[in-house]
Amino acid sequence: MSGWVVVAGLGPGDEALVTPEVRVALEQATDIVGYIPYVARIPERDGLTLHASDNRVELDRAAHALQMAQDGKRVVVVSSGDPGVFAMASALFEALEAGPAQWRALDIRVLPGITAMLAAAARAGAPLGHDFCAINLSDNLKPWALIEKRLRLAAEADFAMAFYNPRSKSRPEGFARALDVLREACADARPVLFARAVTTPQEELRIVPLTEALPEMADMRTVVIVGSSLTRVIDTPHGPILYTPRSA
Amino acid sequence: MSGWVVVAGLGPGDEALVTPEVRVALEQATDIVGYIPYVARIPERDGLTLHASDNRVELDRAAHALQMAQDGKRVVVVSSGDPGVFAMASALFEALEAGPAQWRALDIRVLPGITAMLAAAARAGAPLGHDFCAINLSDNLKPWALIEKRLRLAAEADFAMAFYNPRSKSRPEGFARALDVLREACADARPVLFARAVTTPQEELRIVPLTEALPEMADMRTVVIVGSSLTRVIDTPHGPILYTPRSA
Repeated sequence: MSGWVVVAGLGPGDEALVTPEVRVALEQATDIVGYIPYVARIPERDGLTLHASDNRVELDRAAHALQMAQDGKRVVVVSSGDPGVFAMASALFEALEAGPAQWRALDIRVLPGITAMLAAAARAGAPLGHDFCAINLSDNLKPWALIEKRLRLAAEADFAMAFYNPRSKSRPEGFARALDVLREACADARPVLFARAVTTPQEELRIVPLTEALPEMADMRTVVIVGSSLTRVIDTPHGPILYTPRSA
Repeated sequence: MSGWVVVAGLGPGDEALVTPEVRVALEQATDIVGYIPYVARIPERDGLTLHASDNRVELDRAAHALQMAQDGKRVVVVSSGDPGVFAMASALFEALEAGPAQWRALDIRVLPGITAMLAAAARAGAPLGHDFCAINLSDNLKPWALIEKRLRLAAEADFAMAFYNPRSKSRPEGFARALDVLREACADARPVLFARAVTTPQEELRIVPLTEALPEMADMRTVVIVGSSLTRVIDTPHGPILYTPRSA
């Protein structure tokens, strides 16, 4: 039996958002590799080995997956959301490029998933309904100056913006600085969505004006969406709807 | 029975990419509203009325959906991809905001789907694996000058870029201008992905250097992804893999 690697997106949390394509790959797998809370979503069964690992060991995990496939295993690397958006797909290809030449002959596929910003946007309305950008606010792997430069240029371009990894215990200050940069660059009270643990029982959504956004409204389970200058809020009896018009 | 409206994403084409959440909504619907080729994906059944309409009537279609929900129907507005990304969700909320006040009490939900750029990225590797932007290149609803400004700023920010609606019969020139702007702003041979009809039997993927990208490589079924300055190509026996490292 020849091995393969699939990098699969499990979506934001709700099992009803896992695509049938990903379900099939999970059923065919002999080994599941991933960050502890994502592997915890996979039911145990005979013939399946679960390999859960901690955060920040993405390259080791990727090399492990590739080596197991080389050894004939059918490996699914699980990501939350979409594996191609600030998740395991890039790490896997970094490991592939740096690894032994024979890995390049492996059967490797990426299966998309519902990424957090699109799930969050859907819950709130359609804040990413026109041109937008997605920025990882973690400065673990890139300098803070580059993040700040991108925030200023994104504001100048009048993109709606989605932020992943806005804030962690090890980086409590970055998001406060990001909000300061945005307030200076945008100079208005455009709406900001804080969407935490979207589609899970812990889901919390909050919409506030940029002028009132506070760093502590976000944690590592939060996606933050900042509107463009034209993003609107419609008040309804069920709560506010946030959307960006198609002409924005 | 009280009515509702769901705006649902059918994904890029492959039925295995339709989420179970969307399937349930389609099973519960009394009426399906959408652009002709998307409605054509919904099987007919007793108790279900299909309302297919042409392109460029998004606001009429949205108002029709809202009015049917007001009349007690269970209406699914179908989009390809994700409804919140250059699709029907924003049009629905534009119609809601402009429409009669009682529409605001309606039960309205947006169900996310796999958007074309993420399906295309997955097929090619992980070109959107770090900070990126998504731009609709159609100037039907916004001035061309704004598109060109965003292209220049996105290049300066060194975002990877995904382009929707790059080229149509009625707008043959815009994409040629976009490529000229990018060649000037980027001044390198970074890779460009042309991904046509992704996940369908007509799927075609092509990766070329920006210096060799031609307008006729895209049509309205194509998503175009331009790498950042750090996007890489790995040559493999199965073809090239395109990815953006996590440090980009």
